[in-house]
Amino acid sequence: MNDLERLFNPSAIAVVGASKDPSKIGSQILRNLLSYGFKGKVYPINPTADELMGLKCYPKVSDVPDKVDVAVISVPSDKVLGVIDDCGKAGVKFAVVITSGFKEVGNEELEEELVRRAHSYGMRVLGPNIFGYLYAPARLNATFGPKDVLSGNVAFISQSGALGIALMGYTVVENIGISSIVSVGNKADLDDVDLLDFFDKDPNTGVIMIYLEGIAPGRGRMFIDVASRVSLRKPIIVIKAGRTEVGARAAASHTGSIAGSVAIYESAFKQSGILMAKSVEDAFDWTKALSWNPIPEGERLIVLTNGGGAGVQSTDTFADNGIYLSKPPESLIQEIKKFVPPFASFANPIDITGMAPDDWYYMGTLAALKNPDVDALTVLYCQTAVTTPIGVAKGIVDAIKEAGNSKPVTVGMVGGPEVAEAVSFLNKQRIAAYPTPERASSAMSALYAYARARSYVMKSLAVR
Amino acid sequence: MNDLERLFNPSAIAVVGASKDPSKIGSQILRNLLSYGFKGKVYPINPTADELMGLKCYPKVSDVPDKVDVAVISVPSDKVLGVIDDCGKAGVKFAVVITSGFKEVGNEELEEELVRRAHSYGMRVLGPNIFGYLYAPARLNATFGPKDVLSGNVAFISQSGALGIALMGYTVVENIGISSIVSVGNKADLDDVDLLDFFDKDPNTGVIMIYLEGIAPGRGRMFIDVASRVSLRKPIIVIKAGRTEVGARAAASHTGSIAGSVAIYESAFKQSGILMAKSVEDAFDWTKALSWNPIPEGERLIVLTNGGGAGVQSTDTFADNGIYLSKPPESLIQEIKKFVPPFASFANPIDITGMAPDDWYYMGTLAALKNPDVDALTVLYCQTAVTTPIGVAKGIVDAIKEAGNSKPVTVGMVGGPEVAEAVSFLNKQRIAAYPTPERASSAMSALYAYARARSYVMKSLAVR
Repeated sequence: MNDLERLFNPSAIAVVGASKDPSKIGSQILRNLLSYGFKGKVYPINPTADELMGLKCYPKVSDVPDKVDVAVISVPSDKVLGVIDDCGKAGVKFAVVITSGFKEVGNEELEEELVRRAHSYGMRVLGPNIFGYLYAPARLNATFGPKDVLSGNVAFISQSGALGIALMGYTVVENIGISSIVSVGNKADLDDVDLLDFFDKDPNTGVIMIYLEGIAPGRGRMFIDVASRVSLRKPIIVIKAGRTEVGARAAASHTGSIAGSVAIYESAFKQSGILMAKSVEDAFDWTKALSWNPIPEGERLIVLTNGGGAGVQSTDTFADNGIYLSKPPESLIQEIKKFVPPFASFANPIDITGMAPDDWYYMGTLAALKNPDVDALTVLYCQTAVTTPIGVAKGIVDAIKEAGNSKPVTVGMVGGPEVAEAVSFLNKQRIAAYPTPERASSAMSALYAYARARSYVMKSLAVR
Repeated sequence: MNDLERLFNPSAIAVVGASKDPSKIGSQILRNLLSYGFKGKVYPINPTADELMGLKCYPKVSDVPDKVDVAVISVPSDKVLGVIDDCGKAGVKFAVVITSGFKEVGNEELEEELVRRAHSYGMRVLGPNIFGYLYAPARLNATFGPKDVLSGNVAFISQSGALGIALMGYTVVENIGISSIVSVGNKADLDDVDLLDFFDKDPNTGVIMIYLEGIAPGRGRMFIDVASRVSLRKPIIVIKAGRTEVGARAAASHTGSIAGSVAIYESAFKQSGILMAKSVEDAFDWTKALSWNPIPEGERLIVLTNGGGAGVQSTDTFADNGIYLSKPPESLIQEIKKFVPPFASFANPIDITGMAPDDWYYMGTLAALKNPDVDALTVLYCQTAVTTPIGVAKGIVDAIKEAGNSKPVTVGMVGGPEVAEAVSFLNKQRIAAYPTPERASSAMSALYAYARARSYVMKSLAVR
């Protein structure tokens, strides 16, 4: 079987089903490929058109006078097998089958025949019943979702179609940088196991997020094996659809996939070092923190705040996640005492008080990050009349740069519209910032959860 | 003792400590009072100025040739008692003591003397160590926080200063309409019990949110009694600082207040029908839903979605909250079948499919709300190429209006920047909308949690 290299870095893609009707899915995919700026060649396939969007059209893939690596297929389901045969003749390596109407509506035989046929030509299948895939390093957007995303190191695998496309858009709102998005749909052939294996080796991917309804039957052991290996180097965050028994039943009725026993998945995730998120928001918050930060090298986490209340909310959230703040190192206390008033608190959280102007945030952040006895920092800010949110944010950015980006930082900023802008500014600088103390603390907890999961997997592998 | 009517609707307020220096807290409070448009009279008090911000200044409150109901005091702590004496002579009813430096820094005797002195004149004290208070119906903003908030029916009581001010700003970002914000600080005299009692009778308040570090010693029984009574008519949401043992210790070291045993608070909240939020986000999300919706009259909750994945996430969240979706009424299924394709799903969630254009949202929402066998509705939307987020949002607004606003609705919309705008549009129309399916479902769960809490309290009261 092929490696997936040519799927993500094809020299030429054919779009089967592109047409003059701009509302057709094939046309939308062709438009996305062009507007996102795909680096390879693009061939629209349509027997009734000579030219589409300025590109010469061919009646069949086998008519293209070039080697086509990938065929993106969006023709009616009863025409798919014929296209597969033609692609096979043309030496296509990957059939990306957008078309629905297979197993998800009870048409299992057609789906099995599709895979059998493809394999007989040495071709692998992504899908069917998918919204396509995107690989940012190749400027390849073969989806009918948004035409652009922010570039970064997060790979997102989605088993859900509509929610997957919507989340593709939501990554932009949340400033999450993407290396790849893959819709896996019915997973008739290629599945999470294959993709995890590819993203493990992919130097452009640092974090993997999966919306998972179920693992394909018979692939459980493989999934755990590959995920365990990947987790040693890259965090995997899974939103498991059907975490609860009733949710699992809802997932089963939705896709026909077996969502499986909740307990079995939890155990598999634990063995594999996977972080399980209960919600889209948690998954995105954690992904952001993991994408932009080094992993903490020790337990000495400091929380810095200008408001005791925000510090208490943070303490509670950390405790929920099994993280207990210990006393700050004496050298850090002495450093911070130089500029804060005597009634500041040097427990952890360190409370630099509501009197703190913008530059105390710079000084406090720098002192904490430079201290050899500090491993990680969560900075909390409550909007006050003596500060400007953007000034505080800039101070934090400067301090992180000056300290050399070597330790993880999350930031929680609470306040009005100017604070929302400052949070967005920080995210654009790839600093994981959030609008509440709890979310900033939950995100830092995810970094620790990954560090712990990784060491759990490492120990398990050593025992084997 | 006085009722609180004159505190919230004073005919005249004196601001003791306003000065020519605009950075002084007294000056900020005076500025907020004027710019927010207080309906009564405002008297700046300063022995060294003749005029401040266009208003005649008086050396002492007792020099004001008018009856002053409220004195907002921000002078150094060693001057507060003298001001209290003067206010007492002038017949002031409420001393709002902004000044810090009392019990929170170990100065308990001064705080006790402050209250004793005030009571000797028949005066009540709010504070000390507070950022002030706001009452929207009187256009009274005697805080040094933001100069404006959105008007609405939510009263917010905060024991935290910095976090409280910051959250005052955050209500604007989150489109939460405010009736009142009260900083209670050290609660030397007036506390949650008094304020709950006032907001219970206040026709401008429909929901009460409290950031609570601890209940004052000896007031536990009273708190439960008044909160139980209030809960029968108005939801109370509490963010309890120090939910965990370590968080409680952090809260104690921060304020000197006894955060108390976690279990005792949980039991007290349950007895009182209070909803306990773990985070600022939950509290705000729930408050929004409770502020803008009627309480569901029965268990027949429908979830409408265009994406199965969003539906599963919703099902899981409801299950987490002990809410299980049952089969939709046959009459609703028949109504929706008229416009959706045959592969739509009529389990609950009802999946109107990714083909759904904007107006199916209008039609689906209307059908559900008009159906006599439906009690509540959560609408979920995943951004697709065949819809416009704002079109979907407008359809939902129209349907709710047409159905007569008689049943609770929450909305979860997932997608890119246009979806963020649509969510904001809905919130401005006072429809509780959120950027993820889980938050929309958690907010609907809060409506059910309140309905259940209320009926628990009702039963307990009947037994007594």
